[in-house]
Amino acid sequence: MKAALMEKGRIWVDDVPDPVPLAGELLVKSRACGICGSDLHAARYTEEFVETSREAGGAFKLTTYAPVVLGHEFCAEVLDRGPDTPATFKPGDLVCSIPGLPRDQLLGVGYSEEAPGGFGEYMVLSAALTIAVPGGTPIEHAALTEPMAVGLHAVNKAALTGREAALIIGCGPVGLAVLISLKHCGIGPIIAADFSTTRRRLAEQLGADVCVDPSEQSPYDTADLKRPHDVVIFECVGVPGMLDQVFLSAPRNARIVVVGVCLQMDHARPLIAINKELSVQYVLGYSLEEFAETLRLIADGEYHVAPLITGRVPLDGVAAAFDELADPERHAKILVEPWA
Amino acid sequence: MKAALMEKGRIWVDDVPDPVPLAGELLVKSRACGICGSDLHAARYTEEFVETSREAGGAFKLTTYAPVVLGHEFCAEVLDRGPDTPATFKPGDLVCSIPGLPRDQLLGVGYSEEAPGGFGEYMVLSAALTIAVPGGTPIEHAALTEPMAVGLHAVNKAALTGREAALIIGCGPVGLAVLISLKHCGIGPIIAADFSTTRRRLAEQLGADVCVDPSEQSPYDTADLKRPHDVVIFECVGVPGMLDQVFLSAPRNARIVVVGVCLQMDHARPLIAINKELSVQYVLGYSLEEFAETLRLIADGEYHVAPLITGRVPLDGVAAAFDELADPERHAKILVEPWA
Repeated sequence: MKAALMEKGRIWVDDVPDPVPLAGELLVKSRACGICGSDLHAARYTEEFVETSREAGGAFKLTTYAPVVLGHEFCAEVLDRGPDTPATFKPGDLVCSIPGLPRDQLLGVGYSEEAPGGFGEYMVLSAALTIAVPGGTPIEHAALTEPMAVGLHAVNKAALTGREAALIIGCGPVGLAVLISLKHCGIGPIIAADFSTTRRRLAEQLGADVCVDPSEQSPYDTADLKRPHDVVIFECVGVPGMLDQVFLSAPRNARIVVVGVCLQMDHARPLIAINKELSVQYVLGYSLEEFAETLRLIADGEYHVAPLITGRVPLDGVAAAFDELADPERHAKILVEPWA
Repeated sequence: MKAALMEKGRIWVDDVPDPVPLAGELLVKSRACGICGSDLHAARYTEEFVETSREAGGAFKLTTYAPVVLGHEFCAEVLDRGPDTPATFKPGDLVCSIPGLPRDQLLGVGYSEEAPGGFGEYMVLSAALTIAVPGGTPIEHAALTEPMAVGLHAVNKAALTGREAALIIGCGPVGLAVLISLKHCGIGPIIAADFSTTRRRLAEQLGADVCVDPSEQSPYDTADLKRPHDVVIFECVGVPGMLDQVFLSAPRNARIVVVGVCLQMDHARPLIAINKELSVQYVLGYSLEEFAETLRLIADGEYHVAPLITGRVPLDGVAAAFDELADPERHAKILVEPWA
């Protein structure tokens, strides 16, 4: 098959062997697959990503230096099934799946050599982790199930009471997914902070009550955050030093939910968090139930995800798309369409 | 009055002006005052303590480089009251008090020039933050109210359900205070870890179910922690690198309560906490209600604090006591008795 390969930051299109479905697995065509911030991380910081993934023991992280076919945010079309795979799905069905393939160990789809991701023509998926896309759902919306489920899960882990004011630091796709989920839960006011005009405009369009450019005003100084609310802060940037900055600026007793993935060693001053009795909840991924709920919310139009899609590229546009995503003024989510 | 003064780590006894009670304040004699780990920190890392305290804006932290009379864990005897102070207390009453003096700003008793602490003969206290010691309570037990309240508050902030296994990292006075409070709440099993034989023996005496020497066995490998429990980890050491080590060793979904005060910039790998969806609650101090409850529990004998007291010194023994406390095999809590 044709696939975009990534090795230590270099991205190129090549022919690779078609993946073969084993028992309990499906062979699918990747119809649309979003480029995730983690893919950019994997390309830019391959070494940190691999080393920390090995230490942390996470399933959905890059564990190899060999060339891999990235892509774990996909909508796919069923082609065939492996031996002993129940006939739950038939050829032509559109599906989404949690990007995990349970073999001898749990492989990350789009993060391991044996489980190529959605930036190639074909993938194999675990039938048990796969869900049918409800009829009439646009493929490109269904492809956003995975990143939107991250937002839903982060909001679930925040265990909100409904009395909170929420601050979203960073309005990339992860921050916007959190925003969409918060709006759907009726949480507010929501303050969204990002240096990028484009991303603030997206946040406004998706329902943020206040959008702040941190170069002009501290988001912590907004009137909505200074009222006597419980404050929950979603850190959706994930670069070293962000948490320390949140510690310094957060109001007393604030709860911080770390959704942005910082791969490097980070540093922070505990005494500041101690003096304010802050709490930090680190979150990752979602459950199968949360994933299924997210797809339903997208299919029903309750999650209005269309504004997030700012670009579409074929396989030979993947390398350029990775470069373009470095500029937050140009894009939120770019979808790769291997069959376009 | 005679007082032990501390300036950038140097400790000596000198004559200083008697403090004068203002409206709402009491003049008291310091009868017994414990040496706290924070006092050792203040002496050893004066610069970090002052600079981080200024940035963090905490009330109970050292904010001056000038000589101060340390000591904030005290039982005192009422001598007199300031103008317009209600006659709630009469001379001779034994009292404990939250070590905060609300003047133009909230001063830390034992941490500011204007509010000398319990390592001097006299102090002034806020009548509103002062509580009578129930009759018959030994002075040296009442003096442990402040550190025991830290343990009670940390356990309250952990919001335990009763189904948790608890791991206490570090069995200095803070870790032992957490242990006493956990036992009183009926939480268990409790695993207590410390390199010091003396401190492990104290933890055992106070009811820890398992005591582990981390140089011989990882406390995370104990059978009690490997059973399917919710796990809550109380980090009671407070040195750089501890939190990262807890991240690396903690089971998935563990809750970490940071009670140890790390003054320095700390470092940790967020990806490890993310992969395990850990949470961290930073805690500080206690409320007036928690302070009063602690004194009642000590007075009623429900908190058995006697084993913690391993030494008593007069003012001219303070400097040597600071040195001795560096060796965990020798002491848990040393009380300073300015009138002995």
